[in-house]
Amino acid sequence: MVDNCSPDSVARSVREYEGVTRKRGIGELIECLRINDQPNVVASFGEDAAVIRQDDNALLLAADGIWSKLMEADPFWAGYCAVLVNVHDIAAMGGTPLAMVDILSFTNNTLRNEVTRGMQAASKQFCVPIVGGHLHPDTPYSVIDVAILGTVKMNDVIYSSTAETGDRVVAAIDLDGRVHPSCILNWDSVTMKPAETVRKQIGVMQELARRHLVTAGKDISNPGVIGTLGMLLEVSKKGAAIDLDRIPRPDLQAHNITFEHWVRMYPGMGFILTCREEHTAEVCRLFEEAGMTAQAIGEVNDSSSLSVSYRGVTTSVFDLQQEGIMRIISGAKIV
Amino acid sequence: MVDNCSPDSVARSVREYEGVTRKRGIGELIECLRINDQPNVVASFGEDAAVIRQDDNALLLAADGIWSKLMEADPFWAGYCAVLVNVHDIAAMGGTPLAMVDILSFTNNTLRNEVTRGMQAASKQFCVPIVGGHLHPDTPYSVIDVAILGTVKMNDVIYSSTAETGDRVVAAIDLDGRVHPSCILNWDSVTMKPAETVRKQIGVMQELARRHLVTAGKDISNPGVIGTLGMLLEVSKKGAAIDLDRIPRPDLQAHNITFEHWVRMYPGMGFILTCREEHTAEVCRLFEEAGMTAQAIGEVNDSSSLSVSYRGVTTSVFDLQQEGIMRIISGAKIV
Repeated sequence: MVDNCSPDSVARSVREYEGVTRKRGIGELIECLRINDQPNVVASFGEDAAVIRQDDNALLLAADGIWSKLMEADPFWAGYCAVLVNVHDIAAMGGTPLAMVDILSFTNNTLRNEVTRGMQAASKQFCVPIVGGHLHPDTPYSVIDVAILGTVKMNDVIYSSTAETGDRVVAAIDLDGRVHPSCILNWDSVTMKPAETVRKQIGVMQELARRHLVTAGKDISNPGVIGTLGMLLEVSKKGAAIDLDRIPRPDLQAHNITFEHWVRMYPGMGFILTCREEHTAEVCRLFEEAGMTAQAIGEVNDSSSLSVSYRGVTTSVFDLQQEGIMRIISGAKIV
Repeated sequence: MVDNCSPDSVARSVREYEGVTRKRGIGELIECLRINDQPNVVASFGEDAAVIRQDDNALLLAADGIWSKLMEADPFWAGYCAVLVNVHDIAAMGGTPLAMVDILSFTNNTLRNEVTRGMQAASKQFCVPIVGGHLHPDTPYSVIDVAILGTVKMNDVIYSSTAETGDRVVAAIDLDGRVHPSCILNWDSVTMKPAETVRKQIGVMQELARRHLVTAGKDISNPGVIGTLGMLLEVSKKGAAIDLDRIPRPDLQAHNITFEHWVRMYPGMGFILTCREEHTAEVCRLFEEAGMTAQAIGEVNDSSSLSVSYRGVTTSVFDLQQEGIMRIISGAKIV
């Protein structure tokens, strides 16, 4: 139960959150970069990873950068996250991560040592090697950019853009964690866990893919659980109605955070999925078995709006047709 | 014929050139990032692209960033080069580039438009799509980082680390170009060429790979023709003796540059290769057929030193055992 929750206030705080508003430039950028569609590129922008067909296999390619704020706050955690978010991009597509490359810029060696210590820790824990990259040794700024390669059977890929009307929306988050001491908007459920635990959690997405149990999915990233669902619905060209009371959450009081804060947090291990009603129980069971909390929080509809309810009061967070989050004009999935 | 060439002075200017000295931090960085060897990672640091085994195929993964100096000087050319150097990383391994992802940070939209115009131009020309990535819309700096995925048959991969004593060193460069008006250290032989010309040039590397005509190879990057050969020899644990007079060069006087300047330039299309003596003619012929100038410039030896000669005067550029360029401790190629 959420105390003192106003859906209006939650909707506004998500809509105006920087983690969400920073996504607005994406659509315009894509129009600048896109070239004529290539037959082997099955999906690209708007998905967590691009999908390149190679016979019966899909090659998954993704890249992610780390917010400079995070680097300033905690270089170890920034390095760790640079790996974590890339591993999640592949997991979100149902894939197995194979290897990463990085492009690093550092103003000084102390920072470099902390960042690479974090990267190496995550690389070991998730068993995904960093195999090359590029170093700028002499920049006036520090930047960590990582790209990742993964693979999955072509028929098993989980896309963001394939949610269907009537599907259940499932949120799965590892609630056994802490507000990260250096970054109040990050929920760290990972750095303290054994390798086998986090690998098992990533493995759930691979099993969902193999067994075709979900219709769409994304890892919950900076925009938080509601913002990430908004991005999934935007590329699926759908809406959804969700119940705030059903969003998995830790003991908020014990962690000294509000519900509005919680829904904007980046969870160390979290996924938002859509699935047919008859698969909901099995999807949730698999996440629970891996130590995560998973629950159906709402339903996909044809409205183009993401609305949230709390005890009979309903409000719209995003009108995805009018404004969008990423503002991608062309579809994300090509075929 | 090179006028007024002093091998000592060429050696010093290459050794002290920033394009070369910036590589020094790589070895230390690798030691911070490396985790236990993964059985499917066949080659990693020190190669132009990492090699990941997938049955009979190799997946090639590389990443490159663009020097901030270039971005300041000419954002279109910087964007173009971000794609070009990545395409070259895959070509250098004998591979076919499949797709790229980017991580972009921009201080303003004018810069963004110029950079992406350059990226899109090269992406179209080389027919390698940009399929995703990450955008930082609100940074105090501008950065272009690109990663690329390619593929090649496992048995055909061209490595940097496999030069053998007695091999001929071949330099292949497209001399039909210009000193780039925005960047005096860049030789632009690409922006003015039809797509079919540059694709044919990239295709030569793929043919050399298929026919196993070379023993090692690299694309000539920022360290220039001699510096890049030094990096190849460093990871091959070999030395070489080359003749400065044999390095392909345009009409230096007409382009108003010295020979010392030329050998430090980044050519828009250039490769340094090693091959058995009996394949030298065929290797050079294939490049010439694609409009490039290729010539045997020296021979690989067991000395760990790269020495340059000019009319009987010989001097050492790098003692690779004593100091190295990238200073990679563990071998680049794992198996």
